[in-house]
Amino acid sequence: MKFKNARKDLDLKSNDRLYIKSKSPFAPKQYKDLYPKGFKIFTFHSGFKKKKDDLLIIIFDQTINVASKYSLTSMPSAPIIWDKKNNRGKCRALIVNSGNANAYTGIRGLKNIDIYTEELASYLCCSKKEILVSSTGVIGEQINPEIISKKIKILPLSNNKMLIDAARSIWTTDTFVKTSIHSFKTHKKNIKIYGFAKGSGMISPNMGTMLAYIFIDCEISTKILKKLLSDNIEETFNSISVDSDTSTSDTLVLFSNPINKISLNNTEYNKISKTLNKVMKELSFKIISDGEGVKKIIKVNVIKAKSKSQAKNIAFSISNSPLIKTAIAGEDANWGRVIMAIGKTKEKILQDKLTIKFGDILLAKKGEGNTKVNLSKVDNYMKKNLIEIEVNINLGNHSSVVYGNDLNNEYIRINADYRS
Amino acid sequence: MKFKNARKDLDLKSNDRLYIKSKSPFAPKQYKDLYPKGFKIFTFHSGFKKKKDDLLIIIFDQTINVASKYSLTSMPSAPIIWDKKNNRGKCRALIVNSGNANAYTGIRGLKNIDIYTEELASYLCCSKKEILVSSTGVIGEQINPEIISKKIKILPLSNNKMLIDAARSIWTTDTFVKTSIHSFKTHKKNIKIYGFAKGSGMISPNMGTMLAYIFIDCEISTKILKKLLSDNIEETFNSISVDSDTSTSDTLVLFSNPINKISLNNTEYNKISKTLNKVMKELSFKIISDGEGVKKIIKVNVIKAKSKSQAKNIAFSISNSPLIKTAIAGEDANWGRVIMAIGKTKEKILQDKLTIKFGDILLAKKGEGNTKVNLSKVDNYMKKNLIEIEVNINLGNHSSVVYGNDLNNEYIRINADYRS
Repeated sequence: MKFKNARKDLDLKSNDRLYIKSKSPFAPKQYKDLYPKGFKIFTFHSGFKKKKDDLLIIIFDQTINVASKYSLTSMPSAPIIWDKKNNRGKCRALIVNSGNANAYTGIRGLKNIDIYTEELASYLCCSKKEILVSSTGVIGEQINPEIISKKIKILPLSNNKMLIDAARSIWTTDTFVKTSIHSFKTHKKNIKIYGFAKGSGMISPNMGTMLAYIFIDCEISTKILKKLLSDNIEETFNSISVDSDTSTSDTLVLFSNPINKISLNNTEYNKISKTLNKVMKELSFKIISDGEGVKKIIKVNVIKAKSKSQAKNIAFSISNSPLIKTAIAGEDANWGRVIMAIGKTKEKILQDKLTIKFGDILLAKKGEGNTKVNLSKVDNYMKKNLIEIEVNINLGNHSSVVYGNDLNNEYIRINADYRS
Repeated sequence: MKFKNARKDLDLKSNDRLYIKSKSPFAPKQYKDLYPKGFKIFTFHSGFKKKKDDLLIIIFDQTINVASKYSLTSMPSAPIIWDKKNNRGKCRALIVNSGNANAYTGIRGLKNIDIYTEELASYLCCSKKEILVSSTGVIGEQINPEIISKKIKILPLSNNKMLIDAARSIWTTDTFVKTSIHSFKTHKKNIKIYGFAKGSGMISPNMGTMLAYIFIDCEISTKILKKLLSDNIEETFNSISVDSDTSTSDTLVLFSNPINKISLNNTEYNKISKTLNKVMKELSFKIISDGEGVKKIIKVNVIKAKSKSQAKNIAFSISNSPLIKTAIAGEDANWGRVIMAIGKTKEKILQDKLTIKFGDILLAKKGEGNTKVNLSKVDNYMKKNLIEIEVNINLGNHSSVVYGNDLNNEYIRINADYRS
């Protein structure tokens, strides 16, 4: 049987269930890559996962400024509690492991982080508070800090790696590398903004099981880093949802890598913000493109809503509805379910002002279905990889774009069989 | 191919997609049935569906008292708008059709109801405001009122039917009959409370695509009927969720069938309320037991929460989580995902006070997993049909029980292929 033979090639620990995930059809054909300046990337296979690299250590040449966003869950993982307690916007190193989320692990979970960060702090002669940590993987299992400490001990003997290696080392159910590299021009210099991310299931606003690390190759204060994150997160990482399930572990860190100095006025800020937005958009789109079992991406565009929150509520209600997600999987332009999803938000709208389009095909208008619709055109449209649903509320001037994906047998197979 | 041959046995209109649903494993082996006194049941095959009866008309011997609850959707169907506008707690007849929801059909949708209710009102010599209407099925298609009017014209020639026939005539994707009959004793008389319901997908609190009609065989004022509904809905129809999708059409009507007179004091009220609660619980449980594709029922019991709303939020977050629903389908006691689902509510809880049990097996306690758990006992438990998840918040005295079901390939198949 095909599955059985495939099993030995997979990243399975002996107690893992059989789990095979085929590559997302949206995997990019090529990746940009780089060796960063100003910091070094190390990756290891440490044993959290059976075969692949599962530990990432990044060491900056000096202590730098950072800003972070974390999951809004009320059950944060130990790394999030630890980071929030210790970090004051300064960073010398980052440690990320995959395979064990160190979530719901109590005081022992926090103490275990103390152990491996103290090991690295002592090697770097810095405070452990200048180290950031993240973990992703199974919830509820204690992490063995020695596994990480052992690798810290061999850092001097290890080769540094490229951005793509970093991206790969933090995978859980991901099927392709998620990196993004852009740059902006200032004072005749090209300054890069780049990053990598992981995430595939348990993805919902406020970041799901998502880890993302983004580097700006110039010196920026922590305060401005925070503003950059806040200015750009709403339309990027907070506008995607694979399954409406929010994780215990999501983390987004923005690092200022001070290999360039610039004078930061409004024009420069806008350049940085615009470039950062591109990177954040690309990374979050790559996460949705690798949603567990994804065959189709759903773009929901709610326009002319009364308020921003109304637009976003409706957009997420549509993109998260199991009935819509399964209809898209079945290539059925079932706009009646869109009506249902708008209704269940309980947002006040007027049925006879509403229009619904799939792509540029008008399906419903002024409280009734469009009886003149060309059905074969609709059928052709539904075969596409990217399905755009536009809902015009016609009550105001606010809009929201949200990305989701279809719900199909592959999602069930992955999540009924894989322990996360 | 098996599917192709099966197609001709199915209830498919020519433009329907192939849709086959196997009977729920929870279908009862036998049903109680009755010919009601005080009203007559008529069912017809009118053409909304290809083969089966799809139109129900109930005619009371006299005008009686009723109370109703409707979907909280902001996109109510035409029948809900019509009922709310016209009905003043008095009812002479009920018309329900399946196969077309008459939802998002604008003013024409309402006018079409006028046409067929006028037909029946003229036959009964009553006001059309004494007629209640419901529709369930595809959203966004205009209903042809003549289809219903034609059947009203042949009412005098038609035989009246039993409760089970009524239940069957309002099915959409249901696979078994949902009826419930109980009684209470008062003044040496046995007084029956009984009803029937439909619902299978698009089920969520505030009733999903759910229609239910319950009859109390004694005279009760509209005001008391309303109180009876409010007293009993929270723990019954508002505590179930198949897929978190709320419909445009859900309706629950409680009829007082005045074939008995009783003097209504507190003791009598409590007897009625208790018996009604049994009927409502049984009907709502039957709906969840027929959830689309259901293989397992999930009972979530959140105890010792700070408030009722905290308990219910957490319970629904668990029972609606796609990751938990797929884990249950895969017979995996993945309590880490329960942690995730508690966290995503953002409810303030203390991790180190929490305990999680599957059945009577303790899986997590005081902020950590239970390492002493007997894994083979857990594996055996997960093979059961009914999985009970108990979350003890240990912060107060409020609790909530919610029923959901697993998410498996069958749900995907039904909803990717069936147009609702």
